[in-house]
Amino acid sequence: MSIMSRRTVLTAAGAAVTIPVAGSGARAAAPAAGRQSPGVYRYKVGSFEVTALTDGLARRPLDAGFVKNAPLEDVRKALEDAFIPTETLPITFTALVVNTGSRLVLIDAGTGGRLAPTAGQLYENLAAAGVDPKAVDTVLISHFHPDHIGGIRLKDGTLAFPNAEVVVPEAEWDFWMDEGAMSRAPAGLVNAFKIVRAVFDPMAKDVRRYKGDTEPAPGIYAIPAYGHTPGHMAFRIASEKEQLLVWSDVTNHPALFVRNPGWHAIFDMDPEMAEETRRRMLDMAATDKLLVSGYHFPFPAVGHIAQRSVREFAFVPEQWNPAL
Amino acid sequence: MSIMSRRTVLTAAGAAVTIPVAGSGARAAAPAAGRQSPGVYRYKVGSFEVTALTDGLARRPLDAGFVKNAPLEDVRKALEDAFIPTETLPITFTALVVNTGSRLVLIDAGTGGRLAPTAGQLYENLAAAGVDPKAVDTVLISHFHPDHIGGIRLKDGTLAFPNAEVVVPEAEWDFWMDEGAMSRAPAGLVNAFKIVRAVFDPMAKDVRRYKGDTEPAPGIYAIPAYGHTPGHMAFRIASEKEQLLVWSDVTNHPALFVRNPGWHAIFDMDPEMAEETRRRMLDMAATDKLLVSGYHFPFPAVGHIAQRSVREFAFVPEQWNPAL
Repeated sequence: MSIMSRRTVLTAAGAAVTIPVAGSGARAAAPAAGRQSPGVYRYKVGSFEVTALTDGLARRPLDAGFVKNAPLEDVRKALEDAFIPTETLPITFTALVVNTGSRLVLIDAGTGGRLAPTAGQLYENLAAAGVDPKAVDTVLISHFHPDHIGGIRLKDGTLAFPNAEVVVPEAEWDFWMDEGAMSRAPAGLVNAFKIVRAVFDPMAKDVRRYKGDTEPAPGIYAIPAYGHTPGHMAFRIASEKEQLLVWSDVTNHPALFVRNPGWHAIFDMDPEMAEETRRRMLDMAATDKLLVSGYHFPFPAVGHIAQRSVREFAFVPEQWNPAL
Repeated sequence: MSIMSRRTVLTAAGAAVTIPVAGSGARAAAPAAGRQSPGVYRYKVGSFEVTALTDGLARRPLDAGFVKNAPLEDVRKALEDAFIPTETLPITFTALVVNTGSRLVLIDAGTGGRLAPTAGQLYENLAAAGVDPKAVDTVLISHFHPDHIGGIRLKDGTLAFPNAEVVVPEAEWDFWMDEGAMSRAPAGLVNAFKIVRAVFDPMAKDVRRYKGDTEPAPGIYAIPAYGHTPGHMAFRIASEKEQLLVWSDVTNHPALFVRNPGWHAIFDMDPEMAEETRRRMLDMAATDKLLVSGYHFPFPAVGHIAQRSVREFAFVPEQWNPAL
């Protein structure tokens, strides 16, 4: 019994045509799914349950300006070494829901679907994960770039997490909400200022601001990581002697900026300070063998920093654990 | 308004006690999910749609016999370098569903839940992926080890894919179904022979056998990859100038056996032949920059083989694409 499904014959015109041949199991295949499966991944940090959720991706055309201080050919070579497209960089967004047992905390809120048609998946992935947006107690923000705060509001402007307190870095608030800073902003930043105002103006009195080296949510500690933005924060999540370093945008794509900590992404507002922060965090993560989640790491955006030599680092993704 | 949720006070006995303090959003967090999200990941190979599905994992205690020709301390060091547990190795199982447009082909069938309580997830992940087991046309088997054929039958012995033709390597059939080979089998292999018989005996007349260098399903070509078992097969899936190399058990865990092609896993029945196959396939995958799926690669079990130097290889996982 053969299921070899094709006979190739030649038509009068000489073109090859395949003719289906019925076998025992022969039928049209089930239709293709045509879409990705939900991007949801869980892991424990002590008694805390962390759920990583992809918001999707935006494809960034690579040009000489993306890495400001490296030749484009070096950037492309780094991507080629990682088997990543070299014409457009797929930059992904991964938000975290942390269930501390007493609070349901969302760390960064995704793009809200405003950045690219391939992003804005956070809400459907929350649904796939069984997380009701109304049950989120706290939306904890690392910094005010649009891909981190956009998702606080749905496209119609209503709050995506209506019962959550929104908790933001004080230094971010002070910078982005300052009229003077907005008036001095270069053209490329004006839209980011506008999004900040659209998100926060209607709720300004309810937004709680936190400082570095405090505990903005139970068991979640803020680590100043300035440079990417003026008030950019990383987080240390600690429970029962386990910890997770959430480093937000200390690096963008690890194939570029973990491998080359001295490279300056166009998104870093103070590149020298961002590099200093990056080197400090890489050293800490590698030395202490910390589990690290990065917002722009490939999903599920968690792993370790391996130190290959004195100044050479690599991101090692955590092995997917099918049994939590 | 503060949501800082705890005040720490000292009891008379001096123990710290945390007291919840109600804030605006204060309530008990939603219950923890307590289980992993489905492990389902899709990618295209030309016009074919591939769906990777985890069947879960088994934890293998590491002892001096697991890698037969390397000191245990070297094995542990390799795992430590990859940030993988060094006491027990988490070995995962990833089956593929290939929708060719004309056939729905399952490549290897998982453990059937007989190997470990943390495995046997294939059926629920098929459901999560929206794949009806009754719609599977072909179950294509790489070799006859229990973690690849066990899932052909449910625990009650009925066929898990009742409408599928089961297609197996002829050399595997000839070896495992041979009474003499079974009578000569070392104690450690007797159970594997028994599982082969339990799976295939009731359906023997309906099983189609294929040879190497043939096309056992449309667009899926069998590549002899002997050594791991006598008739072990890899596959080349080709569609519209794209291809995927499915290399089955050419390596077990890549952190061990891609990094160290000369290491012999206890599962390799002819270790020298398996090593020769492994080196040939690693060379081919690296030279041609092939996309490779391995049954025991960490989920979603797809990526590339990077060649770092003449004899040094590494597995580079594919970046998760949230937008198919």
